Amino acid sequence: MPFDDIDTTIPMLGEARIPTPIQGWRKDCQRSFVSNGERVTVEVDPGKLTEMIQAGKDLPSFEKAGPRSKIYFDPSKLKCALVTCGGLCPGLNGIIRATVLELYYGYGVRHIYGIRYGLQGFIPEYGHDVIDLSPDMVGNIIRKGGSFLGSSRGPQNIDQIVDCLERMNIGILFMIGGDGTLKAANKIADAILERGLKISVIGIPKTIDNDIYMVSRSFGFDTAVDVATQAIRAAHNEAEGYPHGIGLIKLMGRYSGFIAATATLAQQDVNFVLIPEVDFDMEGPNGLLETLRKRLEHRGHAVIVVAEGAGQHFFLSATEKHDPSGNVKLHDIGLYLKERIPEYFREKNMKYSLKYIDPSYIIRSLPANSNDHVFCSFLGRDAVHAAMAGKTKMLVGHWNNHFVHVPLEASSGKRKQVTPNGRLWQSVLEATGQGSLKND
Amino acid sequence: MPFDDIDTTIPMLGEARIPTPIQGWRKDCQRSFVSNGERVTVEVDPGKLTEMIQAGKDLPSFEKAGPRSKIYFDPSKLKCALVTCGGLCPGLNGIIRATVLELYYGYGVRHIYGIRYGLQGFIPEYGHDVIDLSPDMVGNIIRKGGSFLGSSRGPQNIDQIVDCLERMNIGILFMIGGDGTLKAANKIADAILERGLKISVIGIPKTIDNDIYMVSRSFGFDTAVDVATQAIRAAHNEAEGYPHGIGLIKLMGRYSGFIAATATLAQQDVNFVLIPEVDFDMEGPNGLLETLRKRLEHRGHAVIVVAEGAGQHFFLSATEKHDPSGNVKLHDIGLYLKERIPEYFREKNMKYSLKYIDPSYIIRSLPANSNDHVFCSFLGRDAVHAAMAGKTKMLVGHWNNHFVHVPLEASSGKRKQVTPNGRLWQSVLEATGQGSLKND
Amino acid sequence: MPFDDIDTTIPMLGEARIPTPIQGWRKDCQRSFVSNGERVTVEVDPGKLTEMIQAGKDLPSFEKAGPRSKIYFDPSKLKCALVTCGGLCPGLNGIIRATVLELYYGYGVRHIYGIRYGLQGFIPEYGHDVIDLSPDMVGNIIRKGGSFLGSSRGPQNIDQIVDCLERMNIGILFMIGGDGTLKAANKIADAILERGLKISVIGIPKTIDNDIYMVSRSFGFDTAVDVATQAIRAAHNEAEGYPHGIGLIKLMGRYSGFIAATATLAQQDVNFVLIPEVDFDMEGPNGLLETLRKRLEHRGHAVIVVAEGAGQHFFLSATEKHDPSGNVKLHDIGLYLKERIPEYFREKNMKYSLKYIDPSYIIRSLPANSNDHVFCSFLGRDAVHAAMAGKTKMLVGHWNNHFVHVPLEASSGKRKQVTPNGRLWQSVLEATGQGSLKND
Amino acid sequence: MPFDDIDTTIPMLGEARIPTPIQGWRKDCQRSFVSNGERVTVEVDPGKLTEMIQAGKDLPSFEKAGPRSKIYFDPSKLKCALVTCGGLCPGLNGIIRATVLELYYGYGVRHIYGIRYGLQGFIPEYGHDVIDLSPDMVGNIIRKGGSFLGSSRGPQNIDQIVDCLERMNIGILFMIGGDGTLKAANKIADAILERGLKISVIGIPKTIDNDIYMVSRSFGFDTAVDVATQAIRAAHNEAEGYPHGIGLIKLMGRYSGFIAATATLAQQDVNFVLIPEVDFDMEGPNGLLETLRKRLEHRGHAVIVVAEGAGQHFFLSATEKHDPSGNVKLHDIGLYLKERIPEYFREKNMKYSLKYIDPSYIIRSLPANSNDHVFCSFLGRDAVHAAMAGKTKMLVGHWNNHFVHVPLEASSGKRKQVTPNGRLWQSVLEATGQGSLKND
Repeated sequence: MPFDDIDTTIPMLGEARIPTPIQGWRKDCQRSFVSNGERVTVEVDPGKLTEMIQAGKDLPSFEKAGPRSKIYFDPSKLKCALVTCGGLCPGLNGIIRATVLELYYGYGVRHIYGIRYGLQGFIPEYGHDVIDLSPDMVGNIIRKGGSFLGSSRGPQNIDQIVDCLERMNIGILFMIGGDGTLKAANKIADAILERGLKISVIGIPKTIDNDIYMVSRSFGFDTAVDVATQAIRAAHNEAEGYPHGIGLIKLMGRYSGFIAATATLAQQDVNFVLIPEVDFDMEGPNGLLETLRKRLEHRGHAVIVVAEGAGQHFFLSATEKHDPSGNVKLHDIGLYLKERIPEYFREKNMKYSLKYIDPSYIIRSLPANSNDHVFCSFLGRDAVHAAMAGKTKMLVGHWNNHFVHVPLEASSGKRKQVTPNGRLWQSVLEATGQGSLKND
Repeated sequence: MPFDDIDTTIPMLGEARIPTPIQGWRKDCQRSFVSNGERVTVEVDPGKLTEMIQAGKDLPSFEKAGPRSKIYFDPSKLKCALVTCGGLCPGLNGIIRATVLELYYGYGVRHIYGIRYGLQGFIPEYGHDVIDLSPDMVGNIIRKGGSFLGSSRGPQNIDQIVDCLERMNIGILFMIGGDGTLKAANKIADAILERGLKISVIGIPKTIDNDIYMVSRSFGFDTAVDVATQAIRAAHNEAEGYPHGIGLIKLMGRYSGFIAATATLAQQDVNFVLIPEVDFDMEGPNGLLETLRKRLEHRGHAVIVVAEGAGQHFFLSATEKHDPSGNVKLHDIGLYLKERIPEYFREKNMKYSLKYIDPSYIIRSLPANSNDHVFCSFLGRDAVHAAMAGKTKMLVGHWNNHFVHVPLEASSGKRKQVTPNGRLWQSVLEATGQGSLKND
Repeated sequence: MPFDDIDTTIPMLGEARIPTPIQGWRKDCQRSFVSNGERVTVEVDPGKLTEMIQAGKDLPSFEKAGPRSKIYFDPSKLKCALVTCGGLCPGLNGIIRATVLELYYGYGVRHIYGIRYGLQGFIPEYGHDVIDLSPDMVGNIIRKGGSFLGSSRGPQNIDQIVDCLERMNIGILFMIGGDGTLKAANKIADAILERGLKISVIGIPKTIDNDIYMVSRSFGFDTAVDVATQAIRAAHNEAEGYPHGIGLIKLMGRYSGFIAATATLAQQDVNFVLIPEVDFDMEGPNGLLETLRKRLEHRGHAVIVVAEGAGQHFFLSATEKHDPSGNVKLHDIGLYLKERIPEYFREKNMKYSLKYIDPSYIIRSLPANSNDHVFCSFLGRDAVHAAMAGKTKMLVGHWNNHFVHVPLEASSGKRKQVTPNGRLWQSVLEATGQGSLKND
Repeated sequence: MPFDDIDTTIPMLGEARIPTPIQGWRKDCQRSFVSNGERVTVEVDPGKLTEMIQAGKDLPSFEKAGPRSKIYFDPSKLKCALVTCGGLCPGLNGIIRATVLELYYGYGVRHIYGIRYGLQGFIPEYGHDVIDLSPDMVGNIIRKGGSFLGSSRGPQNIDQIVDCLERMNIGILFMIGGDGTLKAANKIADAILERGLKISVIGIPKTIDNDIYMVSRSFGFDTAVDVATQAIRAAHNEAEGYPHGIGLIKLMGRYSGFIAATATLAQQDVNFVLIPEVDFDMEGPNGLLETLRKRLEHRGHAVIVVAEGAGQHFFLSATEKHDPSGNVKLHDIGLYLKERIPEYFREKNMKYSLKYIDPSYIIRSLPANSNDHVFCSFLGRDAVHAAMAGKTKMLVGHWNNHFVHVPLEASSGKRKQVTPNGRLWQSVLEATGQGSLKND
C-alpha cells in the first residue's frame, strides 16, 4: 500500500495531564506505559526502508497502542457510550466486555452506557432504551454470539447523534462497526469539533471479511474461517457421495475474498475458489463450466467456494440496488451458479447432483474462538487507553504484531483486498489446481 | 400403534445348522448367544398386556437381535454386498465399518463388496466400479461424514439388481436406506424367492427424520438434533441482534417433525415450531403472522423453526412434483415463509429484520456423534448376526432399549409421526408458549 | 433385576383436589394429562409376562410421570426449595432451569429457593445464603457446566435439615444427587412424616456413572461418554506416536463400568478395558501385563481404559478409607497401573512409552450436550408435576422410553452394574479383542 | 532481542540453476517467485531503524520464504526424507502432508521417505521400517492428531544418521522438532559438509510452548490455547461449585509461560497465573498461599493456572534429573501445589475443595485447528521451496507476518520468553488482578 500521502497523526482533544489511576490500584506491580513517541513501521522491507531514510523521508508508521501514564479525562466525572453497528460478527461481545472492564476496573469510570440497536439508539423517534453497563452485566456475555447491545444497519442524522451525545453528557463514544460506521464516526467527530465539544470518538473496525484498509487483521475473521471449514467438509461429503456430485458453498466477502481463500487453505477439499479480486469466465473452453465438467468427468466430484462479491460483472446489465446501510446490493452469485451450472449440464446431457450451502448467518452469529477472543480483549482495552489519553478520530488497528492507532481518515472509504500474485492467492491456486478460468 | 394385524415372523432361508465361528476365536471368554425364542414386547402398558393375555391373544413382540449359536451360511464360501441409498445421514460410515468388521473378524468372511452410488451400482450401464472391502479400508472412515460407498436417489430395475446379485454370487445383501430403499429391499427379496435363490436381504433403516414405522429410534437423528441447535443459537442471536428481529430456520422433516420438536427442546430459544403433523393458520387473529407480530411488539424478537414438510396445505392448488426417488417433491415452506412474513409486515407498516437459515446439508453430511456411533455399531453388527443366521426380508430396529428384527413388510410404506397430544409435542408447546396458531 | 419383592406404590401427602392451573394459561391448546393409573412395565419379555399373568401376579411396573389434572398444593401459597449434592455432573443446571421454569410458568409458583452448596446450605453454622430463584436468573445457566447452586459432599444432620424446611415453610424439596443423597432424601421424608408435616421430597438421581438401581439412564452419562472419546483419541495418538507406546486413560466408574465400556464402543481405538464388574489378573501368562507385552510386540502400541473402581482386589491388604460423603475411598487403580506397567517392562528389559490421562474433572464439569439437555428438561419438569400432585419419597426415573415415578426405597442402596454376559460387555470384548485376562 | 551479532545468511549447497518446474504445470496462471534479495526486517521501531541506517549499519533482517524461479536439485533424481522428533504437537500431520504434496505436485519429486519414530528411525538397531510417502497416503492424515510418522525422544549418533542418509541417497532431509532436534539438525548439516555431501537439512521448529528463539509464532500453539480454555472452564466450574473451591490447572511451558498467559486471556476465569519467567513467593503475607486464602475468604473460590516450568527455585535443593532427550527433568510444580495448598489450609483450619487438572496429553495430541492448519501448510511448502533452491542449515520461521528463513545457528540453544513488563504479561496481571505475589 502506498503510504506516502497518509497523515498518521492522531488528533487530541487536549493535553493529557492527569496521572493514570491504573498505577494506583496495584502498588506491588510495576506497570509499564506506552509513550506517544513509540511507533510501528508499516514497511518491513529493509531495502525500501534504507532508501526512504537516505532520501530524508519519514518512515511510514503508526502510533503504538496501550496505556499512557497521563490521561485527559477525569474518570470520576466521565460518561462513556458504546454502540455496535451493522452486521453481526464473532467477538462483538468480547469487545463490549473488555471495554467495560477496562473503563470500570482500570480507570474507575462508573457511568458507561450501552446504546441499543446501532445508530438508531441515538435517535429519539425509535424509542430504544439505553443500558447502564457494569462488569456484572457483561461478565458472561462472551458465551453468546451476536451483540449484547443489538445492532442495526443504515445511516442516521449526524446532528441528531451529536445532540444525543451532548444531552447525555458523553465524554467518549466507542463505535464498533464496518466501513460505513467508521465514516459516520469521522463525521460525528467533525461535528463535535465544530460545536467545540470535548468528546472522543474511537472506532473499532468490524469486518468479518477482513477488508478494512490499514488494518492487517480484523476480529471475527479467524472464527469465520474456522466455521466455514465445517461447511466445506459438508459440501465435500455431499459431492463425494453422489455420481458427479457438486458441492457449492457461498461464503462472505463482498469486495475481498480473504475468507474464501483462507478457508480453502484450512480445509483443502476445494477445487474452485471464486473471489471478487480475480476475474473468471463462465463460458468458453477455459471457463468455469467447462473446467468443472472436465473435472467431474475425470474425478467424479467437485467442490466450489464462491465469495458473495465474486463475478459481479455477470450482472452488469442489471440495475443497481442498495441495502439500508447504503451498501450496493450485490447480485447473488451463489444463486446464479446454483441455476447456471445445472442448466449447463442439462445442455451437455450430463447427470449431476448439486448441493448448495450458504452458512453465512451461522458463521457470523457464533461466539468468537479463543484466538479472536484474545484479540478482541486487546482491541477493547486499547480503545479505552487511547480514549482516556484524549485521542479522537481514530481506530484501533493491528500492524506487524502490534496494536496501533490509525486515524479514521487514513482508513475509511478504502478496502484491503487479496493480491492476485501474492502468497495467499498463489497458495490457493496451488491447493486447488483450478488454473486461470479465463479463455484468453 | 395398532399391532393386532402385524405378522412379526422373520422369514428364514433355511435351517441354521453350522456352529458359529464366533465361539471359536476367543476360547477364554464366555460368549452369550441369543436364541430365536427371545423376544421384546412392543406394548409396555401393564393393563393392556394383562387384557390381551386374559383374552388369549399373543403379545405383540419382536425377535431379539444378536449373535446366534448356529448359523446358516458357510463363512468360507460366503460373498456379501453392502449398499447405501438416498440422502446422506450421519452414521452411514459407522454402519459400513461395523458390518465389515463383524463379517471379517467375527465370522471370517473374506469376500465383502461395496456397491457404489446406491442402486445405480447394480446396473451395468452406469459403469460404477465395485469396491473390495476390508477392515483396513474401513477402519478410519468414521472420521468423515457422508457415505464411503457413495449413494444415489431413485429406483432401479429390480430384475437387473437380482441379476447382478446372481452374477456376483452374493449370499447376503445389506441395504442401508430410507423408506423407498426398504420397499425396494422387499421387492428384491421377493424376486430372489421367486428365482429360488438363497440370498438374504437385510435392511438397515436410515431416516434422519426418525420417521420409520416400527422403529423407535433411527441412526443419525441424535447428531442431527445436536447440529440443529447450532443453527437455532445462530438464529436467536440474529433475532435478538436487531429491532424486530426474526430468525427463521428450516429443518429436515418431510412427514414428521421429530427433529424440529427435539431440537427446540434442546435449545430453548425457539418461539414457534411448525411441523407436518400439526396444522396451523397463516392468516387471521390467531394465525402465525398476527401471533408473530404481537410477539415482536411485546418481546422485540422471535425465532421460528419450520420442518420442511409443514404447512403443505398452503400449496394445495399447486401441481404435484416428484424427485428422482419418486418422493413427492414438497413445496418449500421455508422460502414461502421467508417471502410471506416480510410482505405481512410491510402491509402492517412495521419494521422487521428477517434472517433465513437452512442448515440441512451441513447437518446430514457431518460424522455421527458418540451416541449415534455406538448405535450404528450395534445396527451393523446385528444386521450381520441376523443374516448369518439365515434370516431375510427384515430390518434391524430398536424397541424398548433392545435391538430387534422387524419384518420389512411390517414397516415399509408407513410412517412414524409426532403425536400432537403426546409428551414431546406438549413439551414443545410448553417450551415455546406458541398456542394453537389456529383461528377456530 | 428381580422385582417380585418391590413395592412400587408412590406415597402421597394427601388427595390432589385442586384443578391444575396448567390448563388455564393456554386455552386454545388441548393439554393432555397423565392419570395415576397409567403405568409402564419393567419386564418386556413376552414369555415372562404371560407366565406372571397366568400365575395371577401383578406385572412389575412403575407409575408414568407427567402432569396431572388435579394437584395437591396451592401454587399461590407454595414455597419450594432446590438443592444439588455431591460431585458435579453435566446437566445439573438444565434440571435447575427446567424445575424453576415449570414451577413458575406452569404452576404459577412465585417462591422458589436455591439452597447453596448441597446439604451444608440447610445448616446455619455454615452461613451459606439462600438464593431466590426466578426464570430470569436461570434462563442462561445452561450455557455453563457445574452447578449454579453449588454443591458439597457429605451427610448433614437430618433433624437440622427438617428444622430448616419448617422454618422456611417449604412445601416441596427437590434433591438432585447420587446414592447418598437419595438415602438422605428418604430419611428426611421419614422425619417429615414423623413430625406430621406436609412436605414433598422428590429426588432426581444424579450419577454420571449411570449406576442407579431402577433407573435405566441417568443424566450426564451421554455427555460423559462424548467427552471421554476425546481422551481416548488423544491416548491413541500418543500410543501410536511412539515405539511401544501405551495410552492409559482412567475414566469414572466407582462400581460400574458403563462409561468405560460405552466410550470404548464410541471410539474403537481401545485394546483393553478394565471395569469393576469383571475381574482380571495382572500377573501370569494370561494377565494384563503379559497380554499387553504381547500386543506391543505384535502391534507396536496399545490403549488401555480403566474405570476407577476396577481391580480393587489388588488393594485388599491396604486399609479402607472414606471420603467426606462416607463413600469408601477407592485405591487409585490408575496410578497403580501407571507404576506397575513400567516396572514390568523394565523387568522384561523392553522399551516403552506410557502416557497417563485422567480427564475426570474436565468431563464432569462441562455443560450437557443436546441429548442430555432434553433429558434433563423432562426430569426437572416431571419432578415438578409429581410434587405438585402431592407425591413424595420418590425419584424421577426412566424405563422403556417413559419417565416414571420410582419410590426412593426401591432404588436407594443398590447399584446397577454392567452384566458380564450382556450385550454391552460382549460388544466391548468383540471391539477390543482383549480376551479374559484371567489365568484360569 | 539483540540482533547485532547475528549472521542471517543462509548457507547454500550450490548455485540454483534449474528452472523451477512449478512454472510449467500451470501455464495459464502467472506464478510469482521470491528473489533471494527479498527480506523482512526484524525491527519495526522507526526510531531505531533510522538510527541504524544513519550509523551505516545493515538492518537486521531475514530472507523471505517462498518459491524461487531457479532450483538446485533435479526433481527427477531427488530423494527426500521427513522425520518428526520429540513430543506430539497439533499440526505435525499438516506439515507432513503439505511437504509431501508440494514435493510431489509442485516439483514432481517421486521418492519421498518417511523416517519412523524420530531419530531412532535412522539407526538400524531399532529396526523401524521406512515409509514410502505419496499424496494418497497423506491426504487424510490431518483429520487425526499425533504424528503419522511416529516420534521418539532423545539424541542418536550423528554419524550413524549421516551414514543412513548417504546409504539411502537422500538429497533433502526435513526435520520437524524442538530445540534439541534443531541442534541435532545443525550437527548433521555440519557432518554432511565435512563429508562433502550435497544434502540439504531443513528444520521446521516445533514447540507447543511457542518458545523458539527468532520465531515469532510456532505451530500448534493456537490449538493448544484453544483446548486449554476447556480445562480452565472445567476448573472454574469445579471451583465455583464448592465452598472455598480451588481449581488448579497445570499447562505446558517448560521455560516460557506463553500458553498459560494466553489461555488466561482467552478464558478470563483465572485468578492466579504462575509462569517460569516471573518469580513468586509461596509463603509470607504477599505469597501465593496467603493471597489465595484471602481471595477464598472474600470471593469463595479461585482458579490457578501454573506453567510446568514455574517456581523451579522451590526445588533447588533437590537433585537434577534428565529425560531421554537430555532435557532437564523439571520438578512437578503442579503436584507440589496440589500438596502444599491443602496443607496450608489445614494449618489455617480452613475448609477447602481442591481439584487438579492436567490436560497436557489431551492438548498436544489433538488435530490442529483451522488457523494452525493454514500455518502448517505454509511451513511445509516453504520448507520445500527453500530446500529445492539449495538452501541448508536453516529453519522456516515467521516474522512480522512473513515466512522467513532463519539460520539454524541463529536460533538453536536460545529461548523466547514472556517479557514481564510487556503487553502480554501486563494484560494477564490486569485480567487476574493477582498482584506481585512477592513479599518485598
